[in-house]
Amino acid sequence: MPRRQLLIEIPTLGAIDRSQGGVGRQLAEALRKAISRGELAAGERLPSTRALAVSLGLSRGTVNEAYEQLMAEGCLEARAGSGTQVALALHEPNVPSQRLPRKREDHAPSLPESVSRYAAMADKLSPLPSVPFSIAVPKDKVAMDDHWRRLSNRVRASPSAAPSGYCDPRGLPALREAITEYLRKARAVICRPENIIVTEGTQQGLYLAAKVLLSVGDVAWAEDPAYPGLTAVLEERGIQVQRIAVDAQGFDVARAVEASPDAKAAFVTPSHQYPMGMPLSMSRRLALIEWARKHGGWIVEDDYDSELRYAGHPFPALQGLDSDRVIYLGTFSKVLAPSLRLGYAVVPDCLVNAFVGARALMGRGSPLADQHVVAAYMREGYFETHIRRIRGIYAERRQTLIDALRLELPELQIQPSDQGMHLVVWLPNELDDVTVAAAARTAGIALRPLSPMGSTSLKLSGLMLGFGGFSIDQIKAAVQRLRQVLEENPPRAR
Amino acid sequence: MPRRQLLIEIPTLGAIDRSQGGVGRQLAEALRKAISRGELAAGERLPSTRALAVSLGLSRGTVNEAYEQLMAEGCLEARAGSGTQVALALHEPNVPSQRLPRKREDHAPSLPESVSRYAAMADKLSPLPSVPFSIAVPKDKVAMDDHWRRLSNRVRASPSAAPSGYCDPRGLPALREAITEYLRKARAVICRPENIIVTEGTQQGLYLAAKVLLSVGDVAWAEDPAYPGLTAVLEERGIQVQRIAVDAQGFDVARAVEASPDAKAAFVTPSHQYPMGMPLSMSRRLALIEWARKHGGWIVEDDYDSELRYAGHPFPALQGLDSDRVIYLGTFSKVLAPSLRLGYAVVPDCLVNAFVGARALMGRGSPLADQHVVAAYMREGYFETHIRRIRGIYAERRQTLIDALRLELPELQIQPSDQGMHLVVWLPNELDDVTVAAAARTAGIALRPLSPMGSTSLKLSGLMLGFGGFSIDQIKAAVQRLRQVLEENPPRAR
Repeated sequence: MPRRQLLIEIPTLGAIDRSQGGVGRQLAEALRKAISRGELAAGERLPSTRALAVSLGLSRGTVNEAYEQLMAEGCLEARAGSGTQVALALHEPNVPSQRLPRKREDHAPSLPESVSRYAAMADKLSPLPSVPFSIAVPKDKVAMDDHWRRLSNRVRASPSAAPSGYCDPRGLPALREAITEYLRKARAVICRPENIIVTEGTQQGLYLAAKVLLSVGDVAWAEDPAYPGLTAVLEERGIQVQRIAVDAQGFDVARAVEASPDAKAAFVTPSHQYPMGMPLSMSRRLALIEWARKHGGWIVEDDYDSELRYAGHPFPALQGLDSDRVIYLGTFSKVLAPSLRLGYAVVPDCLVNAFVGARALMGRGSPLADQHVVAAYMREGYFETHIRRIRGIYAERRQTLIDALRLELPELQIQPSDQGMHLVVWLPNELDDVTVAAAARTAGIALRPLSPMGSTSLKLSGLMLGFGGFSIDQIKAAVQRLRQVLEENPPRAR
Repeated sequence: MPRRQLLIEIPTLGAIDRSQGGVGRQLAEALRKAISRGELAAGERLPSTRALAVSLGLSRGTVNEAYEQLMAEGCLEARAGSGTQVALALHEPNVPSQRLPRKREDHAPSLPESVSRYAAMADKLSPLPSVPFSIAVPKDKVAMDDHWRRLSNRVRASPSAAPSGYCDPRGLPALREAITEYLRKARAVICRPENIIVTEGTQQGLYLAAKVLLSVGDVAWAEDPAYPGLTAVLEERGIQVQRIAVDAQGFDVARAVEASPDAKAAFVTPSHQYPMGMPLSMSRRLALIEWARKHGGWIVEDDYDSELRYAGHPFPALQGLDSDRVIYLGTFSKVLAPSLRLGYAVVPDCLVNAFVGARALMGRGSPLADQHVVAAYMREGYFETHIRRIRGIYAERRQTLIDALRLELPELQIQPSDQGMHLVVWLPNELDDVTVAAAARTAGIALRPLSPMGSTSLKLSGLMLGFGGFSIDQIKAAVQRLRQVLEENPPRAR
C-alpha cells in the first residue's frame, strides 16, 4: 500500500469541505493560505495534480482548475523539467497571518479576573539577572564539576535512564532512596523512601502543601518577612494569612497562637529564616510541635539552604521531632543548580497519596533522566564532596562580602547569620530599600529589597545580597558600585 | 581560622539547649539519638572531647561526663590506639526512630477533606504497566535513536546547556523558536515564540488553562467521553462541567450552546477525539469559533497526537482559525517520550503573562538541559525524520492489531480512526468494560475501559488498545490472550 505517498504534508488542505460547492475555489484558497503561512516555501515542488486528486478524493480537473488559477495569480509556476512549484518570487513572504475575518458585532475579548492576578505573580516571581548580588547562580568555581558531566553522559547512555514511558509521580525510586539516606544522616529527618515526593523545587513543595493541607478561607501562619513565593501561593489558594514578625529566636509561636488560635498550618523556615537568617530556637521548636499536636495543625518546614552553613552546629530538622505533623521541603537548587528543577517533599504516610494526586494533576511528575543522574551523583559520594567543596568557596566569598561592606559601607548593619547564600544588610532609616534596589539595578547591580517581603506594619528597609555565584573581585567591585549608588541617592524621608 | 574543624557533622547535637540545665545529660541523649538514627555508625570515631567541647561551647568536663555515661551504657567504647568510637556491637541498629513522646491528650490527626479528594486523583491518574495494550511506551524500534543520545551528550556538554540558574518560566527561547517553526509548518498554528509556554505535557497545559481562564463555579464544556486528566482538573478547580456526547462529527457545538449557553470555555480534542478517535468536522469547527467570538468564550484545543496519522488529510489546527480565542496544547510525550515531561501551550498575547505567573507559582518552570537537547533535535531535522520513521512502524503495528482483532475477535467492532497510538473497540452490550479490563489485567494485559471516561448517561462499553510500544508478535499474542479473557468471562447483565 503506497501509504507514504498519500501523506501530503500541507495541513491547510485538511480544511476543504467537500460537502460545500466550489471545491476548486476552496482548494485554491487553501493553497494560497499554505503559501502565505510558509507551509509551502518558495521554490517548493507541489504534488502532481493526479497524486493530489487521489489523495483528496477530488477529480483531477478540479485540482487542475485550482493550480491554473494560482499560476494565473503568480503564486505557482511551472517547474524547470516538469511539475509545478511555488513561485520563486514569493521567497520570504512574511504575509500577515490569515484568519477568519471578524464581524463587527463580535464581543471584544474580556479577560477573566484571574488573568491580572496571575500576571502580577509573573512579575513577583521573575528571577533577577545573573549579576551581583543575585542569589544562587552556580558558575565557574562553584559550578557542577567534571564528575557531573561524565556521570551524566554515562548514566544517560545506560538503558535504564534512556527516554521512556510514564513513571511514578513520586519520582524515581533510586533518587528517593538516595534522598532518604542523605536526609537521615545530614538533617536527622525521619523518613522512608515512600515518604519522599520528588518536586520541581521548594516552590512546588509549598504549592503542593497549600493545595493538600488547606481549603479556601483557612487560616495559616507565615513568618514576617517571608519568601514571596510562599505568600503568593497562599494568596492564590485563598488562604487567610496571619503574618507573625520574627525576632532573634525566629518565628514567635506564642504570638501566633494568640493572634489566630484556629490556624490550620504554619509555614516556617526554622534552620535559616528567609530572608533574615536566624534559626528558630529550640524552645520555639518545641512550642510549635506542641501546638501542632494539640490542635491537629500542620507544620511546613522549608529547609531551603541548610547544607551551606559556615560555623557552629546546625539544629536538626524540625521534622525529626514529629514526622507526623511536619512536611519537610528541600531543594537541589542551592547546592546543585536551579536549572535542574529538582527538590523534594517529605510527607507523613497519611498524606502521601494526596501529594501524589496533586502532583500528578499538575503535570504527572518530574522528568526522569536527570533524576537518574542525581541519584548516581549522591550514591557515588560526589554530592557530599561537592557540598564540602562549594561550602569552602562560599565561606570565602561570604567573608569577602562582609569585609568589603565593613570597609566601604560601615554605616550598613549586617544581620548576623551562619548559613546560606545571601546576607541581609539594614539601610539607615531614611533610606527606602525599593528605591535603592531600583537605582542599583540601573547601575548593573541586582538585589532584592526586603520591605516587599514584609507586611506593611513591619517597616523594614534592607537588602538581600547574594554572594554565591561571584568571584572575590566581582564582589569587591560590586560593593564599591553599591557605595556609589548610595552616595548618589542621598537619604530622603520615605 | 580552622573553620573545617568546627563543623562536626552530627545534626542531632544542634538540639542541645544550653540555657537549660543538665547539658551533659542532654549531650548524652543527643549522642544516643544520633547512634540510634545511624548518624553515627558502629565503629565510627567520635571527635575528641576537647574538639567537641570547643565546638559546642561547653566545658571539657561536661563532654567527658557524657562520653563516660555512654561508655558505661555500652554505646561507646575506647578505640584501639586512642580516642572513642561507637561500639562495634551496635552495627545495624535499626532501632525504631525516636521522637518526642506523645501525650495522651494530643489530638488524633484528623485529615482535611482535600486529602481524600487528591488521593483519589492519584489512583485516577496512575499510569498502566508497560505491557500491551498500554499507550505510549517508546521501546526498541520506536525508541529515541542514536542521534538523540549523541546529540544529548554533545549539547549537554556545551557550556550553554550546563547546569545554571533560574530561567524564564516560559521555557528556553531556542526551544520556543523551534516549536513555533514546527507548528506553523505542520499544524498551521499562528504564533510567535512569545506565545509559547513550555509545559510538562498536555496535563499541565490543561491545568494551567483551567487556572487562568476559569473561576470556581464557572461552566465549561467538555466532550463526553473525555480524557480523565481533564475532568479531574476541572473538578479540582470547582468548575461546573457540562458534558456533551460526541457523535460522528465530534463535539456537538449546537447541543452545547443549548445545554449551557453561559459556558466560559470549551475543552476539545478536534483532530482526534479522545478517546473515540473522530476529528471535529469543519462546520462544527466554524460553529465553535463563532460561539467563542460572540460570547467571549475560550477554546482549549488538546492536540495530543496529531503527528501520528496514517491516511488522508489532517485538519489544520483549530487555533489557526482564531488565535485570539484558542489555547493550543501539544506534547512531546507521544512522538518523543513521556519521561521527558515536555510539552507546550500556545496562548494568545493577552494571556501570556497570566500563564507565566501560574506556571512560575507551581514550580518556576521546566528543567533546562533537555530543552536544549530537544531544541537542537528539532533544529537539526532529526525530529521530523524521527516522526516519519516511527509513523511507519506504528502504521504497521496498527494494521497488525486490526488484522488480529478481525481474526480472533470478529465480534468486537473497531471504532474508525486515522491517527494516534490507540484504537477503540466496542464490547457487545452485555459485557461490562471495567470487569473485562480488570480480568485482562490479571491475565497480564493492560487496557483502559471506556465507561469511566464517559458520563453515566452515556452507557459506553469499550476498550482502548494502545499499539505503539509493542512488537508485531507481542500484539498478536496479546490479542489471543484477550480472546481467552473474554471467553473465560462470559457476558452477563450489567
